[in-house]
Amino acid sequence: MSYESDFLQSLRRLATDPAARGLTDDAAVLGLGERSLVLTKDLLVEGVHYLPGDPPADVAWKLLAVNLSDLAAKGARPCGVLLGYSLGEEAWDRAFVEGLGGALQAFGVALLGGDTVKAPPGAPRTFSLTAIGEATGAVPSRGGAGAGEQLWVSGTIGDAGAGLRSLRGGIDAAQSLIERYRNPRPRLGAGEALAPLVTAMMDVSDGLLIDAARMAEASGVAVRIDLGDVPLSGAFLEALGSGRDARLFASTAGDDYELLFAAPAEAGAEILRLSERLGLPLSRIGGFAAGAGLRLTDGGDEVSMPERLGWEHG
Amino acid sequence: MSYESDFLQSLRRLATDPAARGLTDDAAVLGLGERSLVLTKDLLVEGVHYLPGDPPADVAWKLLAVNLSDLAAKGARPCGVLLGYSLGEEAWDRAFVEGLGGALQAFGVALLGGDTVKAPPGAPRTFSLTAIGEATGAVPSRGGAGAGEQLWVSGTIGDAGAGLRSLRGGIDAAQSLIERYRNPRPRLGAGEALAPLVTAMMDVSDGLLIDAARMAEASGVAVRIDLGDVPLSGAFLEALGSGRDARLFASTAGDDYELLFAAPAEAGAEILRLSERLGLPLSRIGGFAAGAGLRLTDGGDEVSMPERLGWEHG
Repeated sequence: MSYESDFLQSLRRLATDPAARGLTDDAAVLGLGERSLVLTKDLLVEGVHYLPGDPPADVAWKLLAVNLSDLAAKGARPCGVLLGYSLGEEAWDRAFVEGLGGALQAFGVALLGGDTVKAPPGAPRTFSLTAIGEATGAVPSRGGAGAGEQLWVSGTIGDAGAGLRSLRGGIDAAQSLIERYRNPRPRLGAGEALAPLVTAMMDVSDGLLIDAARMAEASGVAVRIDLGDVPLSGAFLEALGSGRDARLFASTAGDDYELLFAAPAEAGAEILRLSERLGLPLSRIGGFAAGAGLRLTDGGDEVSMPERLGWEHG
Repeated sequence: MSYESDFLQSLRRLATDPAARGLTDDAAVLGLGERSLVLTKDLLVEGVHYLPGDPPADVAWKLLAVNLSDLAAKGARPCGVLLGYSLGEEAWDRAFVEGLGGALQAFGVALLGGDTVKAPPGAPRTFSLTAIGEATGAVPSRGGAGAGEQLWVSGTIGDAGAGLRSLRGGIDAAQSLIERYRNPRPRLGAGEALAPLVTAMMDVSDGLLIDAARMAEASGVAVRIDLGDVPLSGAFLEALGSGRDARLFASTAGDDYELLFAAPAEAGAEILRLSERLGLPLSRIGGFAAGAGLRLTDGGDEVSMPERLGWEHG
């Protein structure tokens, strides 16, 4: 067990309130009278989660989007956010605030408060954001998937990964892919509409394979994904093709901020109707079975597991 | 205007939701059905808000206490907290978690969630905490004090400042003063009991004088404080005496985490009964008048203003 996961274990021992969901879910769910609040907090560290050269407006956008994506995965409607800001260079900070304003407006979310500090000169900066949402019904956890149920994902997978690879000079990719890396769009509407239909839901942030494995583990079941069913965009196919390597790349790249969810077979027709109504692909990519672990197939044929399933932490 | 306050202005322009209270209060107040949530977020930066050599358990305690103190000042009852943690050295981190556990238990507060990151090696760390509370009635702001009203403060002032001065080797002080610096106790019960009686309330974190000046400014009135009425503890008097310099030191040192509040004269008797019931000194230290700014007196005689009123930021 890594030091970081050891540390998380020690925090989990403190988080005995049921609202904390054992710190194993994407968000806390706090009952307040007849309402339920959904609370999440994510940090971005300079040099770790973004590069000093990244456009500040994109850093602001991402900080907001990754937190709202956690709310989306819980079917919650955002009420507002609190910002923890570390002051740096004036022009950078100004561009950050401008980007934050645009992102708040794009998602219709209110800035409610926070704190601003001066980091010691030259120190990498840490930004934090707390997003507060209100549950729109029962709040799906990661851990509710059952054997025999199906695994679904929203949108297309791998676009942000291809965008990042292009930014790093690895490939030529359409601007739309770079856009998906820089300005992810949390699936708030879809999350709210899906919440009543699913047995488990989370967002894909670290990679489709690793996140699906986490859902299976939290649910105490095994999961199978068919690479051939992983939804790829036209721009992705143009940049990287549809071969197995491209599909494995898409399924492990992360930063998708799509919704990954489990549902019984009976819910399939309803999910497809919803997909049409939302104008958002919702694709069945696998299923759950008794047991444990992740299996990969491609058009039904068994595929050996790649060395890396996504971004590991915790 | 400093760069930092200029930056805060630009954030305020984004915070148009009434729940944000214009980012000028200690906390956001978010209505949810018939309930109101009180939300606050404070950061601690290594080398800025605490020293690398400070005991990690005290850093944890302080991170929790300063946030809960903001809830106390709004009369809110804490529901739980989210932690933003930056991993460092193993033994330090372990001691931090242990201290956090003790502090959570001492205040009866639940850890609900958060995020853990690895900072780049050698980088100073930033910790953030979001505290979520529920309003127990109307939520006093900083800005409600009226001309003719009286200014009160809870507990004793200057103890933490004397404790810090002693830690820095400046003076000899009782362990109880060091304790007040290291392990401040937010006035949660008193805040809840006072909220219905006050017209404005905030906590004293940056210094009695500067915080009183801020309350007056937010309220659009002038404030006068009589140094002779500032409550000092026996241990403080023993360490620093009761002279004007000692009183000025106490009133500008900060880190008190006491409650500063305004109330009409008619509420005085009720406040004193409450003081008795709580076993906590509640002292009248001055009053508000039409106009603007801060005036100091000592036993009624006008005193010239010290150069520094407390910790300035924003």
